[in-house]
Amino acid sequence: MNIISFSCPIMTKQKFGLTVKKEEDFSEWYVQVIIKGEMIDYYEIKGCYVMRPQGQFIWKCIQKWFTEKIEEAGVQECYFPMLIPKSMLEKEKSHIENFSPEVAWITKCGNEVLGDPVAIRPTSETIIYPSFSKWIRSHRDLPLKINQWCSVLRWELHGTLPFIRGKEFLWQEGHTAFLTKEESDEEVLAILDLYSRIYEELLAVPVIKGRKTESEKFGGADYTTSIEAFIPGSGRGVQAATSHFLGQNFSRMFDIKVDTDEGSENSSFVYQNSWGITTRSIGIAVMIHSDNLGLVLPPRVAMTQVVIIPCGITSSSSKDDAERLKMYIGKIQAQLKSSGIRVYVDDRNNVTVGFKFNHWEIRGVPLRLEVGFKDMEGAEACLVRRDTRAKRQISVEGIDQTVANEIDTMHNDMLARAISERDSRISYAKNFEDFISALDNKNIIMAPWCGIDECESTIKSRSTKLGPNGSVISTGAKTLCIPYDSKPCSGLECVSCGKQAIHYTLFGRSY
Amino acid sequence: MNIISFSCPIMTKQKFGLTVKKEEDFSEWYVQVIIKGEMIDYYEIKGCYVMRPQGQFIWKCIQKWFTEKIEEAGVQECYFPMLIPKSMLEKEKSHIENFSPEVAWITKCGNEVLGDPVAIRPTSETIIYPSFSKWIRSHRDLPLKINQWCSVLRWELHGTLPFIRGKEFLWQEGHTAFLTKEESDEEVLAILDLYSRIYEELLAVPVIKGRKTESEKFGGADYTTSIEAFIPGSGRGVQAATSHFLGQNFSRMFDIKVDTDEGSENSSFVYQNSWGITTRSIGIAVMIHSDNLGLVLPPRVAMTQVVIIPCGITSSSSKDDAERLKMYIGKIQAQLKSSGIRVYVDDRNNVTVGFKFNHWEIRGVPLRLEVGFKDMEGAEACLVRRDTRAKRQISVEGIDQTVANEIDTMHNDMLARAISERDSRISYAKNFEDFISALDNKNIIMAPWCGIDECESTIKSRSTKLGPNGSVISTGAKTLCIPYDSKPCSGLECVSCGKQAIHYTLFGRSY
Repeated sequence: MNIISFSCPIMTKQKFGLTVKKEEDFSEWYVQVIIKGEMIDYYEIKGCYVMRPQGQFIWKCIQKWFTEKIEEAGVQECYFPMLIPKSMLEKEKSHIENFSPEVAWITKCGNEVLGDPVAIRPTSETIIYPSFSKWIRSHRDLPLKINQWCSVLRWELHGTLPFIRGKEFLWQEGHTAFLTKEESDEEVLAILDLYSRIYEELLAVPVIKGRKTESEKFGGADYTTSIEAFIPGSGRGVQAATSHFLGQNFSRMFDIKVDTDEGSENSSFVYQNSWGITTRSIGIAVMIHSDNLGLVLPPRVAMTQVVIIPCGITSSSSKDDAERLKMYIGKIQAQLKSSGIRVYVDDRNNVTVGFKFNHWEIRGVPLRLEVGFKDMEGAEACLVRRDTRAKRQISVEGIDQTVANEIDTMHNDMLARAISERDSRISYAKNFEDFISALDNKNIIMAPWCGIDECESTIKSRSTKLGPNGSVISTGAKTLCIPYDSKPCSGLECVSCGKQAIHYTLFGRSY
Repeated sequence: MNIISFSCPIMTKQKFGLTVKKEEDFSEWYVQVIIKGEMIDYYEIKGCYVMRPQGQFIWKCIQKWFTEKIEEAGVQECYFPMLIPKSMLEKEKSHIENFSPEVAWITKCGNEVLGDPVAIRPTSETIIYPSFSKWIRSHRDLPLKINQWCSVLRWELHGTLPFIRGKEFLWQEGHTAFLTKEESDEEVLAILDLYSRIYEELLAVPVIKGRKTESEKFGGADYTTSIEAFIPGSGRGVQAATSHFLGQNFSRMFDIKVDTDEGSENSSFVYQNSWGITTRSIGIAVMIHSDNLGLVLPPRVAMTQVVIIPCGITSSSSKDDAERLKMYIGKIQAQLKSSGIRVYVDDRNNVTVGFKFNHWEIRGVPLRLEVGFKDMEGAEACLVRRDTRAKRQISVEGIDQTVANEIDTMHNDMLARAISERDSRISYAKNFEDFISALDNKNIIMAPWCGIDECESTIKSRSTKLGPNGSVISTGAKTLCIPYDSKPCSGLECVSCGKQAIHYTLFGRSY
């Protein structure tokens, strides 16, 4: 098995833009955007990536926002080991079935061969729940809510793609235990709501909330809820985060129970949830917002929100003039900084102004302030938006407020565009011909569906596109989720098998 | 090889205090303190531990403080993969020699055996530097300063101890590259200074700065600097953090260089540093400050800084009275909270006040406010310090300021006590008899030393304590560091070999 990738491009200084257009070759475009935008870099092992500061910054924004919210709900942060003994990993049957093909095993340490191999966590249910069993004795120990930020390892062999599917990725995993099913159910949705807010309020990405079908749910869960996003460039859906109701499946296996009646022998197993969001979120935002000039960062989470570029200084400018402009820019920079805006002044003197424009555009910096002598005389600056490239003169008076407002406006505009693009690409299909034609037009599809497992597989195989020699050109449509706010479908027939439909379900090709 | 520990104690609710005294059995006392204080829990794999919220909180405080400081110095946060191909790990010879006995290898994924095993990072030099080689082209790309927070895996077989030495532990690792040796040297010490401030300003622990001897330096470094702490309970020194000057050792191996003269073919290899601090810091603070009642947390980093305990409510108290006391306490709580003090009200009605005192003492909460009816009538509360158990009545007027001051006073007192205890246990030894007797009295030793490798090993073996059957009772003294502010030793003889001494060196048994 060849795990070393020989295809890592050598990064040289990015003097030039993208060599391919988003609408022509989406996959190649995406990879160029994140590499040239310095979000990620390739690594010697295929499916492992280096997260560069611009990418890591967005993850830190998500961490900060989400941690504040869950702390308010009483969640505490822990760190559990990354290693799992085989016996523990195999305790919950459907769980291990789900993960076993992807689990990486340590069998050797130094020169010594281990008697019992240990796994690297693909997820931590089986690592954490033995502790829950020790810590939970009485109902007073409930609810127990913990969270950890870490990386997990899943040995994906096919279809690795930076941010979207990698062998190792960063995530948070929350694990909670409740006395009652009601509290547990309620939290599943409360967390799903926080996840949707991460996408909408930080990344300017709209998502659809729903429940996963039986065949798509998490191994070991009673039910799984998810948020699903849409990638217009590829016409694919993408799972954006999940929140699982585990019921009593793990609590029975790991003996996590409370004495319900103090002193008596009655005891009951707790109800559990687990929930996670990963750095895939960053890839989704990049795929949706970026363009043929490169990265377009959602302005609230951009490491640099504003770049200031001094203009009009030439070799014939007097030293005095240059100094005055520098001071003028310094004042603007200080004003923005004091309002908490992340600003950078590109005062390099070895490259042209045009070079700087390209440099920051390909790196997705949301706002550019061009400041020349004329701007200075008028106590102004020229503000340019990365997404629309719209330019306008703004006054230096209250410039921090103007820029802060522009950040919000830009965010709202980006979200609105993404919603309208997505909504125009959700097709309602009455029959399978409509279904296939919508799919081929890079849509995702809302269709009445019977809810039967076999029908789901049939839809997948019926919509798989084969080449003349029988090879798969394009995998078939999967169920993305059963959206919570879909219209009723009583009386309608299943889009594929013709049996009675029980709910509108969202289908699509997906990552 | 038995990696599963059968000695994990089952945690039951901690109704009782420690069963052993610090001065009687330090090791057992330490383990009880961190387990019963809910800092850490055992895990099914020996040498791996569960970091509970109280422990994780301290780590987050360190993260926040240090991140702010290094960001000011231009360090950016990244995340690099945890996996290393064998060929990369082996590129720098002295580096791999240093780590190879402890490296864990993945050889199997799912059911597939890997052609090339991959290692889990024991440290990330060899993971990160190929990227440095790609990213650094010209002197304008320098300095390059990155940092990551992650866990690393070192398969320690012997002497694992929670926080102090584990198979997996959390740390940060900074990696920087400079054009000149001078800049590099300067940063090594600047970082060492930040590390010493983490200990002194957050954990109330004094440390000694110095340089490691040749035999104790990091594999692949030109020189290693460290801070060393002292554990009075065991009489041992402990390495508290390290900052390495790697010189051009890695830059030559990984081809990290810049064109010094644009356009010409001259190029020079960069100078590199790497530096790290781990969760061992938390264990050191626990060992130094805690006592026979349990944990004593340094007050600036305690998850709960103040616990308020309502007193005097009995079954005969009127409902009105109880309600008034509750409101009074609520106001105090709000006032403390609004000043950023982390406060918790223990209003359980199923346990006694005495039970609550013990509960919070064993968990190390720095300050306790006892609030009863008499306190309320006098607009007062009774403030009790965890470290000294000193009690005093304080006015509710300005209580937030009073408590904030007490937090600082307590911090300063704890640091002063630790300094005075340590200083009284640093012995200056003129000859080897003094050296051994100081060591046996649980001291660390400043001794004139020749600086010769062989002499260092001799000192270790000469000071190893053997039992009647030849088994090792106590390992010998190692060099901890060559302190930066030690007095000159010109004209003195080496404490062991009698050759000319070149510097006072700090020796001790160590973790």
